[in-house]
Amino acid sequence: MALSEAPTLRAVPIGIDATGTRQEFDSMGTVAVPADRYWGAQTERSLHHFDIGGDRMPKAVYHAYGYVKKACALVNAAAGRLPDWKRDAIIQAADETIAGKLDDHFPLYVWQTGSGTQSNMNVNEVLSNRAIQLLGGTLGTQHPVGPNDDVNMGQSSNDTFPTAMHIATIFAIDDQLLPAVTRLVEIIEKKADGWMDVVKIGRTHLEDAVPLTVGQEWHGWAGQIRACIAAIEASRAGLYELAVGGTAVGTGLNAPAGFSRDVAAKIAELTGKPFVTAPNKFMAQGSLDAMVRASAGLRGLAIALMKIANDMRWLASGPRCGLGELKLPDNEPGSSIMPGKVNPTQCEAMVMIAIQVLGNDSAVAFGGSQGNFELNAMRPLLINNVLHSIRILADGCDRFREFSVEGTEIEREKISAYVAGSVMLVTALSPVIGYQNAAHIAEKAIADGTTLKEAALASGKVDEALFDKVIVPLNMVGKGLAGA
Amino acid sequence: MALSEAPTLRAVPIGIDATGTRQEFDSMGTVAVPADRYWGAQTERSLHHFDIGGDRMPKAVYHAYGYVKKACALVNAAAGRLPDWKRDAIIQAADETIAGKLDDHFPLYVWQTGSGTQSNMNVNEVLSNRAIQLLGGTLGTQHPVGPNDDVNMGQSSNDTFPTAMHIATIFAIDDQLLPAVTRLVEIIEKKADGWMDVVKIGRTHLEDAVPLTVGQEWHGWAGQIRACIAAIEASRAGLYELAVGGTAVGTGLNAPAGFSRDVAAKIAELTGKPFVTAPNKFMAQGSLDAMVRASAGLRGLAIALMKIANDMRWLASGPRCGLGELKLPDNEPGSSIMPGKVNPTQCEAMVMIAIQVLGNDSAVAFGGSQGNFELNAMRPLLINNVLHSIRILADGCDRFREFSVEGTEIEREKISAYVAGSVMLVTALSPVIGYQNAAHIAEKAIADGTTLKEAALASGKVDEALFDKVIVPLNMVGKGLAGA
Amino acid sequence: MALSEAPTLRAVPIGIDATGTRQEFDSMGTVAVPADRYWGAQTERSLHHFDIGGDRMPKAVYHAYGYVKKACALVNAAAGRLPDWKRDAIIQAADETIAGKLDDHFPLYVWQTGSGTQSNMNVNEVLSNRAIQLLGGTLGTQHPVGPNDDVNMGQSSNDTFPTAMHIATIFAIDDQLLPAVTRLVEIIEKKADGWMDVVKIGRTHLEDAVPLTVGQEWHGWAGQIRACIAAIEASRAGLYELAVGGTAVGTGLNAPAGFSRDVAAKIAELTGKPFVTAPNKFMAQGSLDAMVRASAGLRGLAIALMKIANDMRWLASGPRCGLGELKLPDNEPGSSIMPGKVNPTQCEAMVMIAIQVLGNDSAVAFGGSQGNFELNAMRPLLINNVLHSIRILADGCDRFREFSVEGTEIEREKISAYVAGSVMLVTALSPVIGYQNAAHIAEKAIADGTTLKEAALASGKVDEALFDKVIVPLNMVGKGLAGA
Amino acid sequence: MALSEAPTLRAVPIGIDATGTRQEFDSMGTVAVPADRYWGAQTERSLHHFDIGGDRMPKAVYHAYGYVKKACALVNAAAGRLPDWKRDAIIQAADETIAGKLDDHFPLYVWQTGSGTQSNMNVNEVLSNRAIQLLGGTLGTQHPVGPNDDVNMGQSSNDTFPTAMHIATIFAIDDQLLPAVTRLVEIIEKKADGWMDVVKIGRTHLEDAVPLTVGQEWHGWAGQIRACIAAIEASRAGLYELAVGGTAVGTGLNAPAGFSRDVAAKIAELTGKPFVTAPNKFMAQGSLDAMVRASAGLRGLAIALMKIANDMRWLASGPRCGLGELKLPDNEPGSSIMPGKVNPTQCEAMVMIAIQVLGNDSAVAFGGSQGNFELNAMRPLLINNVLHSIRILADGCDRFREFSVEGTEIEREKISAYVAGSVMLVTALSPVIGYQNAAHIAEKAIADGTTLKEAALASGKVDEALFDKVIVPLNMVGKGLAGA
Repeated sequence: MALSEAPTLRAVPIGIDATGTRQEFDSMGTVAVPADRYWGAQTERSLHHFDIGGDRMPKAVYHAYGYVKKACALVNAAAGRLPDWKRDAIIQAADETIAGKLDDHFPLYVWQTGSGTQSNMNVNEVLSNRAIQLLGGTLGTQHPVGPNDDVNMGQSSNDTFPTAMHIATIFAIDDQLLPAVTRLVEIIEKKADGWMDVVKIGRTHLEDAVPLTVGQEWHGWAGQIRACIAAIEASRAGLYELAVGGTAVGTGLNAPAGFSRDVAAKIAELTGKPFVTAPNKFMAQGSLDAMVRASAGLRGLAIALMKIANDMRWLASGPRCGLGELKLPDNEPGSSIMPGKVNPTQCEAMVMIAIQVLGNDSAVAFGGSQGNFELNAMRPLLINNVLHSIRILADGCDRFREFSVEGTEIEREKISAYVAGSVMLVTALSPVIGYQNAAHIAEKAIADGTTLKEAALASGKVDEALFDKVIVPLNMVGKGLAGA
Repeated sequence: MALSEAPTLRAVPIGIDATGTRQEFDSMGTVAVPADRYWGAQTERSLHHFDIGGDRMPKAVYHAYGYVKKACALVNAAAGRLPDWKRDAIIQAADETIAGKLDDHFPLYVWQTGSGTQSNMNVNEVLSNRAIQLLGGTLGTQHPVGPNDDVNMGQSSNDTFPTAMHIATIFAIDDQLLPAVTRLVEIIEKKADGWMDVVKIGRTHLEDAVPLTVGQEWHGWAGQIRACIAAIEASRAGLYELAVGGTAVGTGLNAPAGFSRDVAAKIAELTGKPFVTAPNKFMAQGSLDAMVRASAGLRGLAIALMKIANDMRWLASGPRCGLGELKLPDNEPGSSIMPGKVNPTQCEAMVMIAIQVLGNDSAVAFGGSQGNFELNAMRPLLINNVLHSIRILADGCDRFREFSVEGTEIEREKISAYVAGSVMLVTALSPVIGYQNAAHIAEKAIADGTTLKEAALASGKVDEALFDKVIVPLNMVGKGLAGA
Repeated sequence: MALSEAPTLRAVPIGIDATGTRQEFDSMGTVAVPADRYWGAQTERSLHHFDIGGDRMPKAVYHAYGYVKKACALVNAAAGRLPDWKRDAIIQAADETIAGKLDDHFPLYVWQTGSGTQSNMNVNEVLSNRAIQLLGGTLGTQHPVGPNDDVNMGQSSNDTFPTAMHIATIFAIDDQLLPAVTRLVEIIEKKADGWMDVVKIGRTHLEDAVPLTVGQEWHGWAGQIRACIAAIEASRAGLYELAVGGTAVGTGLNAPAGFSRDVAAKIAELTGKPFVTAPNKFMAQGSLDAMVRASAGLRGLAIALMKIANDMRWLASGPRCGLGELKLPDNEPGSSIMPGKVNPTQCEAMVMIAIQVLGNDSAVAFGGSQGNFELNAMRPLLINNVLHSIRILADGCDRFREFSVEGTEIEREKISAYVAGSVMLVTALSPVIGYQNAAHIAEKAIADGTTLKEAALASGKVDEALFDKVIVPLNMVGKGLAGA
Repeated sequence: MALSEAPTLRAVPIGIDATGTRQEFDSMGTVAVPADRYWGAQTERSLHHFDIGGDRMPKAVYHAYGYVKKACALVNAAAGRLPDWKRDAIIQAADETIAGKLDDHFPLYVWQTGSGTQSNMNVNEVLSNRAIQLLGGTLGTQHPVGPNDDVNMGQSSNDTFPTAMHIATIFAIDDQLLPAVTRLVEIIEKKADGWMDVVKIGRTHLEDAVPLTVGQEWHGWAGQIRACIAAIEASRAGLYELAVGGTAVGTGLNAPAGFSRDVAAKIAELTGKPFVTAPNKFMAQGSLDAMVRASAGLRGLAIALMKIANDMRWLASGPRCGLGELKLPDNEPGSSIMPGKVNPTQCEAMVMIAIQVLGNDSAVAFGGSQGNFELNAMRPLLINNVLHSIRILADGCDRFREFSVEGTEIEREKISAYVAGSVMLVTALSPVIGYQNAAHIAEKAIADGTTLKEAALASGKVDEALFDKVIVPLNMVGKGLAGA
């Protein structure tokens, strides 16, 4: 078909005004599909064969696929392999995919072929039919824009699906997770800064220890989160490497020279993210190791958040029979039977989220180990779990911050009382009178139920002046966060 | 209110003909809720505070809760604590809940309070308002049927939520999982029976071994599944024990004597399942151990199915460069780039499902360990993962059976060729000429690329008559399944 | 060899009086082994090729193998396949193996062939050479008792190794684990019985709840453990089924008819355990499902113990700034820097053990899924993890009991003070004045820092007489363990 | 004590020439310890209370602790807090510890206090007594060098134990793991380079795919390992940050200003590793996140190795009834019953190791989440699992390389036959005749059992000249590793 005869791209709104079914075909024959859907035979086959549970391939995978198909169309056209008018039609459909406007046309389940081929074909079919529509063709004919020969030109599911996985994961990390986690850590740090002088009792092994400040404790939490952010950011390095251009088994069969490099560059340009082509396509397609490493970053965050949420709910326990150092916001009645009860529900939700992320990560790691030869056929499993983890972590951080951390206050009276009553302040005497003498004073105070001072003076090892000089909680907390 | 003044239960169809919002209240104040929904203040608060991800509390939990509320209303009324007209209104709303007719009114997230209180209050509020509607009252007034005082009478979330968890899990096991697994194992057994005489080469360590029959191999798979069914059935014992009647901490405060026993009996009657009251309510509410044990049953099945699906796809590998003993149905084109390729996609989906179930189970076990004192506050995490596992296992078994196992055929020619060419048949000579002599024959045949017979005769340890008498594959496969 | 010429069994003490090396052979050639060891060529090859880490195949596997070899020798001899004098020599060596007297001759690593063949050959070689020694033969000649042809007669590693796994696991459960766990639960129950009348505050979500008794709380723990014991006992059912008699792939090739049944019966007789032959040898050899199920029982116990140990250390937290309801024994100084500090170290050890068991179980489940065809080649992994879990659980229970639970005391004063100060007793008012009124009283008391009584009377909803009648903690704890 | 009176350091060989027991004391009283051991009362108490299983704290932790104690002594002495003669005695004992010469004096179990205090005290006691011996004092007197006041000066277990964990892990990574993994990847790369021109059939979904070269496949494996090495190296960043100087809770109480910085610098100098002081001691002591991240690096390697080992054993399956593309070395007889059988045992060991590492990692992640307040008391659990994983990975890599990879050869004839017979070469026709036409040719060839060429010519879509031009396997494998 000469360029002079190129079909014109028409302005057709999204949607197919039809009812009943339409015949679509693939190499195995024809299949009836819903007439108002863009998808084709292979999507319909997959819906039929994989009606399993309620887990659908996350839409984010299709949005990411939009970039892949657009970039490939641009590179194929630039190389003269694809006419410009086909390119333009594919690009419009790809842009609509990226924008989520075609979401209703991507219905497939997570539990499908392990390569993600069915979701790739779903994209190919939808873009093909949408392009056909835009070009005035007949849906279901695969002409003038075919799903395999045009939309999938120079591509395989084996290289494009992991490419879409990486893109989707990067967006989810950058747009959902990191902003939410950063918002959380910033409020923790702000509160920590405000409480840097509030001396409180430390606890190790759950037992009374020497003092620190509330701000130091909170900065300990913040430090954990900051380190997790850094680890998650670092985990993006592997995700920036894209498999596209390896085609079926990594060799790049049926793609022109330079395709890998050009498509990755185009995706980088379109997304504004530093994607590059994977230097080793056999690794990029035979393994899912970069996804496993990304999941490790997520579980690291889950572990830190679990510790923080647990600390907060323990410190807020009470109101009369717990530790009572923190006061969390009263968000809702806590009990259907106990009137007036309020519970640390945001902390509990965060702990459950953390455990779910660890469970998801366990599935990711397992799946990551189950590749064979030129393909790891556990891809839908991995992308679904990773995106699930990101989403609940991100939302969880926002709710936890908004409805728990921001409104948390400290119970200064209780906090001071603990410090005043603690026996472990004796530690400061240790360098003065020796560990064993100090120990005997502490043991005596605990056994007799006296104050530390009473026991110290009674021991004859310390006089009041020395005691008062050494046992000053505010002098025991050091400066800042770096220890002595 | 005397019985003579009892409001009449009216025939009002489900639904609230209103737009905008309605004021609802709880102990913390008033909250605007969507006017066309039955839920009240606490449900709305939960929606606001826990907008986390896309995971919603499974509807099955609410259906199960319908039984709990109905049973409690019956027992409370029988004890004279609840007027019959309140009972009847609550029962109608509970029946509608059981039937799934009120599903749209149970919108809460999985990530909420760890006790499930918000879902219990969701049920209490919906049943309260539906009862009010049926009795001609005003929605949002909590009169004449209140969510806490009437619908939740003698109950706590702490005892009713685990009760609903157990009921929902039993139904999912009995109605979804066991029928699907049984259908699967039966077709495997049927095929196995048909192939009990087809001699094939055995493989251990992936290496050629002595022969068995195709039917024996398939019966090995069936045996695994049968044992898993038995284990899942046995795991129901703990689930049959219900916490209801323990109320807030297990003591039964605010419930009348005998409530535990009577409600469990009523639930048994209503469901047709052998539920009983848990003899130790402190264990029943402080732990989730019965759920962990149920999950162990599920993972056991996942492990067996993974082995079977893996065996099947390996045995079907090819068509030219694999083992090629089985022919799975061609369900769909397998590749977007490689024409004519067909893949064992049902097997892959099953393997992914199995790994997801193991990941879910890992979260269940972790959550099961995180209880404190009188409550394990990881309940929504556990019920969501357990029901998720059941659903994908059940659906996965059905699809795997329907689209893979049922249509699987054997490649008799290939199977026979392997047996004929194998060197490991030498094993049968071992008792005759000794292990070391037999080993040298086998090693020689492999090294020289000869047949076993050639190597055996060349060794001088066996003559042709003896060889032909001993090396008869059909005589090497024993009888049945029980070995020698 | 006629019976009249049978070699005589001589009384030779265990041990080889030789230095340097001795030549041993197998089908691949000769190998030098330490002259003072009974093992042969294949053991030596394994030591050379699998020098990996410090993990050795547990000796319990070899002790169990002693029973297998003894039983097979007895059955083979009874069938006339093995002369009595060979039988007697093998039996003596097997008895010495069972008794642990030959432990130094079983040096192999866990990380070896996945079938356990090398450990089976280690047993075959040691028993062969020991028998040769007892019969006056020459070590290394494999005569008159050969490792393959005599000691391994009618057997394969593929059926005997899982048999030994099952026997070893049963012994470890019966002899180590169940007695230790039973000792622990009995002391918990005894203490619980003694404290059935000590009213304490309940805690749900870590927050103050309504009261129960110390004895009820402890019986909650005991109930968990009792249920775990039952589950572990039930998990033995699968372990009682033995694979022996399936030989190489489950068909029983080279074993005589009835061998499976007879050997299992003999093992049952020798061990006093109800072992039977596995009805489906293809399942018994192709899967490790019974081991996975046994491990699930262990993790269930770990989960219960973790909850209990956590509860105990939290309840004992303090001495001045924690919950302080329990007083654990002071076993050792707790800190190298804080004098007089004592920590709940037994609880911590138990928590770590529980997590290790969960990690081990995770490896067991993973390995259990990785079988192929007629063999699951992850056996050493599974038996090592299962026996490791049993051992640390058993020892952990004993130490936890001996050094923590037995000496634990309650702090009655603190316990009473919590009950007296708690606001959640308001729950008992709920049926009298309604949930909402009760809630407002509780909220007011908490906000104003007053007693519940003060707030109740100030509300005007309750008078003193009513309050004093309803708010009686001792009346709120119900009776026994079964709730209302 | 003036310097002029300083005791002289004497040249006393390691060892105590005594039998029976010696009295040692701590703040709780006196304890009898074996007279020929350097340890003191707290070590003995720990041995008594924690006799649990066979897991001992790895010696590497003590070697690392030697550096900590030496560095602290140097810094304390430089600050004038510790006399030079004490410093010198402590240093000699520390050097002996580092060198492993005192290993027999560090007997403690893994399952002990969660802070590692007992192991720190074990070090303090041994160094104290050894220093006393060197200075001519009396063992058990804690003079002139005391375990708490001198050896532990300015330190706590809470900061030194994680410091020792980091040092031990860095050494294990640098000295054991990375060299072994590097040796492995180098041989894989070398073999890959040699086979870059050997065209073989690709396999995706276990099914025949388009060709690649043996070298490309092996370089895919190598690429995975290289990426794992990079990830492990990157995980060291967190381990380089040391907690020492935070003392009991992170504030640095009882340590002089600058102690953190100076001790870390000294440790860096002594070890030659870039250790620095942790900028946030509350995070460094309250969490074990850096260890969790290190473990994630290890599991990443395990996952890659598992894939590689699985690929290798599948490709080597046979000899007659498997894929048969690779020939692994025959290391040992593989079966006790099947003569001449050889199995991929090194691959199996590697797979089991990988699963163990994943199980260990699961325990590490779980433990990492269980910190409370100023301490994560799961330290012994984490260090034991991490060092275990490193050791079995390192040794496993060496054995796998030495006894499997190095001797692996390719079966050129079989490899070529697969390529010649494959139908998937049709893919190269797809851009020429379209995907659907190509698919029909492939499907026909498979259905009819013909060659691809026969089916292609019969289709009428391709003539022989075109077929022979397009279907050239060597032209289908691209160049190098980067795809098209």
